[in-house]
Amino acid sequence: MKDIDFMARAIELAKKGQLKTQPNPMVGCVIVKNNKIVGEGWHQEYGKDHAEINAIKNCKKRFGLKKALKIIAGSDFYVNLEPCSIEKNTPPCSNALIDYKIKRLFCGTLDPNPKINGRGIRLLKKAGIKTKVGLLKNECKQLNKIFFTNQKKLRPYIILKSAQSIDGKIALKNGDSNWISNPESRKDSHHIRSKVRGILIGKKTAEKDNPSLTVRLTNKELGIGKNEIIKQPTKIIIGNLKKSKNNNKLFANNANVIIGSRLSAKQVENLEYIEYKGRDFLEKFLKDLLSRNISSILVEGGQKTLNTFIASNLFDELVIYTAPIFLGDGSISTLSLKPPNSIKKSTRLKKVKIERFKNDIKTTYYNTNI
Amino acid sequence: MKDIDFMARAIELAKKGQLKTQPNPMVGCVIVKNNKIVGEGWHQEYGKDHAEINAIKNCKKRFGLKKALKIIAGSDFYVNLEPCSIEKNTPPCSNALIDYKIKRLFCGTLDPNPKINGRGIRLLKKAGIKTKVGLLKNECKQLNKIFFTNQKKLRPYIILKSAQSIDGKIALKNGDSNWISNPESRKDSHHIRSKVRGILIGKKTAEKDNPSLTVRLTNKELGIGKNEIIKQPTKIIIGNLKKSKNNNKLFANNANVIIGSRLSAKQVENLEYIEYKGRDFLEKFLKDLLSRNISSILVEGGQKTLNTFIASNLFDELVIYTAPIFLGDGSISTLSLKPPNSIKKSTRLKKVKIERFKNDIKTTYYNTNI
Repeated sequence: MKDIDFMARAIELAKKGQLKTQPNPMVGCVIVKNNKIVGEGWHQEYGKDHAEINAIKNCKKRFGLKKALKIIAGSDFYVNLEPCSIEKNTPPCSNALIDYKIKRLFCGTLDPNPKINGRGIRLLKKAGIKTKVGLLKNECKQLNKIFFTNQKKLRPYIILKSAQSIDGKIALKNGDSNWISNPESRKDSHHIRSKVRGILIGKKTAEKDNPSLTVRLTNKELGIGKNEIIKQPTKIIIGNLKKSKNNNKLFANNANVIIGSRLSAKQVENLEYIEYKGRDFLEKFLKDLLSRNISSILVEGGQKTLNTFIASNLFDELVIYTAPIFLGDGSISTLSLKPPNSIKKSTRLKKVKIERFKNDIKTTYYNTNI
Repeated sequence: MKDIDFMARAIELAKKGQLKTQPNPMVGCVIVKNNKIVGEGWHQEYGKDHAEINAIKNCKKRFGLKKALKIIAGSDFYVNLEPCSIEKNTPPCSNALIDYKIKRLFCGTLDPNPKINGRGIRLLKKAGIKTKVGLLKNECKQLNKIFFTNQKKLRPYIILKSAQSIDGKIALKNGDSNWISNPESRKDSHHIRSKVRGILIGKKTAEKDNPSLTVRLTNKELGIGKNEIIKQPTKIIIGNLKKSKNNNKLFANNANVIIGSRLSAKQVENLEYIEYKGRDFLEKFLKDLLSRNISSILVEGGQKTLNTFIASNLFDELVIYTAPIFLGDGSISTLSLKPPNSIKKSTRLKKVKIERFKNDIKTTYYNTNI
């Protein structure tokens, strides 16, 4: 096996932590001695052991404590992200690697946080450990696109979502929008919900639709254990929404709700109001969300809210489900943006993914630059 | 080999006539004796021998005239379409099959023309030849969707085409539309042009864009021989367009042009004016086009023309290239249709095909019902 094969395995392991590590990154670690894997681990859940420590534990389990110590000394570690150098929930991994006297460290990318970027590597180098940074760099970045966005842009990873007709409409004039997309598309959108920490809508949509904004999938559909509890994303409303019959589903089951508006800040059980005044409202709100560990959000509408995010260039993915129907003139358009001066000078999104759900088409436009 | 394998081979052979048989259907024929193929043929070009005759010729070439006659007597014929029973450019094939004393005929579909539908089969049955209709029926229909549409709907097969932004716009307010789609998409649209007999636009587009409406691909790109001449589709204009500097590219190289409008009917070399008065203009025009052997058309715009075809439900395919840009409010929308009364009651197109050209997405919505 080659270096990149071991790193690919580390990425594979890292993915096992998906949905559970946010706001932490997903990290996998492979320990190699004499070209053989002698230990594997990954960061399983926010607040728990890091990948490197789990790989060391795995090695000990495989070979017994005494033999494992001998094996790890002089071994190579493959990790998709730079080992941490700061104590937070757990002791820094860099120190552990030094203590265990490893020989070489291969890592995919440096930590994107400018304050610690390269610090772990410097610690290791100083201790005489050989380091190589950049193995499968793009794959490693892609794996942790949420974490990289959080660190570099100081805001949650933002996914915008809409379901529209061929002629780009999200509802008839009278508001009728049930259902534009088919059941398979709608199920897929619940999978997106399950992967984010927050779902954001505007006040008007909250009052008009009284949505639940919950993940409605079975544990099997989510690929999690029978008895695991489904972690519901926090519901986030923009605008001075007051609890009422028109929006009571949002607050059902003591759900976590955050409302950002001009209303005075206060916290009542799981309902938090954040107060904003003046300009840069959206940027500040997003920063506040991240500080509350909401590392990723799905913006589901309505039209005005979606367009505000696009117009402010505050999005990483734009997901559009297009159903094979026409809703005609006078219906509400998905997008309502300022025109560019010329087509030549207009920005082209650089990456597009296409999926299909029966006759609905899902297009994901990527706007990330991490 | 089984019956369906022989029929699949007949379809494969039929496809070799693509682009050349219109307004005739593509037809392939396989002659089988003792479970072995002893002759193959296809309809190569409009006006030339039919598939059955070419397969017989092929058998004669393989085995010599005398032996071939013996082999064909008592053999089975596999043809994707019912053998013709009417003399047009060539003698009817049904008679030939009877004269050659074949044993069985397998055909994919009956002739869709209501006047001859089943007539060839009846002739053969009467002569004691066993017949089986319906083998790979759907594939055989799909192969000749143009011919079936012509026969059943008495109009050309109609493809509508547009290139739009993510927000469904075909041009900026000032008319700027160069270029929304990328070079790869534009090349693909020339491939569509190469497969139709006519390209239709509205008068306004003809005057605004002064388009050439020609197939601009190399012989290699078209998959035809080096010295073959590229057959250019007829240019069709709706509206009282008069030759001028603003539209002179349309008429260059003595191109075939048809103009349908209130202007008096007349023919000047390759330019024909067809006169219409009153209602049902579009239906009549389409019928007239078909009577001029224009069995398929590509409608390229502008917006009003495209929408007229959709609103009249006069289309078989709607092709949309979507480029990853936003053109914003005030720009010209691709579609401008009447809204349905409710989403539940709105018509869903039944079949969708997705392709991609780099970051452009090509969606083909099928509206055929043949």
